[in-house]
Amino acid sequence: MKKLIGEPANVVRDALVGIELSDDRVRVDHQHRVIYRATPKDEGKVALVSGGGSGHEPMHGGFVGAGMLDAACAGEMFTSPTPDQMEAATNEVDRGAGVLHIVKNYTGDVMNFEMAAELADASGVKTESIVIDDDVAVQDSLYTAGRRGVGTTVLLEKIVGAAAEEGRDLAAVVELAKRVNGNGRSMGMALTSCTVPAAGKPTFDLPDGEMEIGIGIHGEPGRRRAPLAPASEIAEMLVDPVLDDLDMTGAPTIVMLNGMGATPLIELYLMYGEVAALLEKAGVTIARNLVGNYITSLDMAGCSLTVLRADDDVLGLWDAPVNTAGMRWGV
Amino acid sequence: MKKLIGEPANVVRDALVGIELSDDRVRVDHQHRVIYRATPKDEGKVALVSGGGSGHEPMHGGFVGAGMLDAACAGEMFTSPTPDQMEAATNEVDRGAGVLHIVKNYTGDVMNFEMAAELADASGVKTESIVIDDDVAVQDSLYTAGRRGVGTTVLLEKIVGAAAEEGRDLAAVVELAKRVNGNGRSMGMALTSCTVPAAGKPTFDLPDGEMEIGIGIHGEPGRRRAPLAPASEIAEMLVDPVLDDLDMTGAPTIVMLNGMGATPLIELYLMYGEVAALLEKAGVTIARNLVGNYITSLDMAGCSLTVLRADDDVLGLWDAPVNTAGMRWGV
Repeated sequence: MKKLIGEPANVVRDALVGIELSDDRVRVDHQHRVIYRATPKDEGKVALVSGGGSGHEPMHGGFVGAGMLDAACAGEMFTSPTPDQMEAATNEVDRGAGVLHIVKNYTGDVMNFEMAAELADASGVKTESIVIDDDVAVQDSLYTAGRRGVGTTVLLEKIVGAAAEEGRDLAAVVELAKRVNGNGRSMGMALTSCTVPAAGKPTFDLPDGEMEIGIGIHGEPGRRRAPLAPASEIAEMLVDPVLDDLDMTGAPTIVMLNGMGATPLIELYLMYGEVAALLEKAGVTIARNLVGNYITSLDMAGCSLTVLRADDDVLGLWDAPVNTAGMRWGV
Repeated sequence: MKKLIGEPANVVRDALVGIELSDDRVRVDHQHRVIYRATPKDEGKVALVSGGGSGHEPMHGGFVGAGMLDAACAGEMFTSPTPDQMEAATNEVDRGAGVLHIVKNYTGDVMNFEMAAELADASGVKTESIVIDDDVAVQDSLYTAGRRGVGTTVLLEKIVGAAAEEGRDLAAVVELAKRVNGNGRSMGMALTSCTVPAAGKPTFDLPDGEMEIGIGIHGEPGRRRAPLAPASEIAEMLVDPVLDDLDMTGAPTIVMLNGMGATPLIELYLMYGEVAALLEKAGVTIARNLVGNYITSLDMAGCSLTVLRADDDVLGLWDAPVNTAGMRWGV
């Protein structure tokens, strides 16, 4: 295992030190491992709390800041944060307008956010939650009943973050979150496994000459193994299942071509070219795009495609100013 | 070799297609392989042209846009662009105020940019050049007489880009570029080799349990091989040579902790924490920082540190608005 780390057991703790030192938009509660905005918004704004296992950076801590999240709970590597982390975050960010929990559909995350919601409720904080399940690869998976939550999470945190920032109330924010989740679809693939520091060896075995189509963001098995193929064929293996699952024509879309952590940007641009050509051929209108590392799987090489069927409201929220380490424009 | 590509010989061509499709701030001249701003500035602005071998994305094409470069010439992988690419770019972007060539110190780049300057001169376009040589690792190297040009290039393109944008003349822009180069120092390290697509195998051999300290951005040998070490010790191996080479105390600094292409962000944040602690201990004031992938070496795992001794002028230019794929704020 070759990594820029200290003690494998302390990677999350140590990385939070660097996140806080590098980003003056946030502060870190190191006891609870929660990343907060350094300058919280005034009363009356719906607050957004997300979180999940670490190892997917910049998600979620890199999306804390004006126009996106109010707090992100950092779990251990690929492990859900605990309910007490989520409860602390929820109580801290509530400004009287309620708190939305943004949860990716993994059994541990869902259970722990539910428990945190009950605890917050007992302290008089109103919470709602959105469970994201956009991965078309498989119906059930290693850590999930139902579809996994992946790339749509990134787009949702931006779009719903903008809605909360402009003052929409909790009901409106929840409705929007459901709409975004309902209209987003993702499919990923891996060229290599990732290595969890504490494990010290690759999570799964992926021989030379093979790739995994439909990979999960923790290395969960996808749909199938396939021989390595040119980028144009890989693009088809991502685009087709997404479009088979939801009609993306007749509306503007937001497309994310995401790197899994160890994929060089030149390959992501090349893949974006292939994907965009296929989408155009299928009659899909790409109104906005993101190319880069947004929801990663440690040092996995590979990529994922997310397509979100949008509308004018969603595009306007997408374009609204955002000021986070992972996504920034308009400020 | 596991990569998201088509024909290995066509990676640069194919990636430029994706860059153009994804980024409406730029247009691409595919014949000359030059990336231009989609909306050029008016007459009277000093124009900035950079370029170099591909494989270092987002540098340089991802730095074309308002507040940074006017054009970037994309060479073949790890290979200098040709003089005719540079000449085409220089003539295209000149607005009557002259053109600055931003050149990293590699023999091919320096020679080709000199030739392009002569050609442009013959067409009546005034050019100046800055050759960046900030890598403290080694005096001469595989493709370089003198020090190699690395991370300071990224900071310089931002700072000098802002100066040109605010209307400084060619002499002032050249003076600033020299000042930035003179005050910037870098040192890099690799955990793994990179693989050039056309070669199909790792550029060098780096066994399990070893790392290369002082690596070049094309995999050129550094100062030494060392056994794998914890992040805190690696941080010392980067910080010490930089501070030994230039006193960074008594002035604000800009610090970049850069990933080599296949390093997950969580490791870069962790390393930044270690580096920042060492710099603080040494009495260095970090006024601004960048953590992420800015000057990469294909799929190499590792990182580099750049420290720039700044002043109020430089910090003001750093903070000025910039709108590129690789760096964006204020717009």
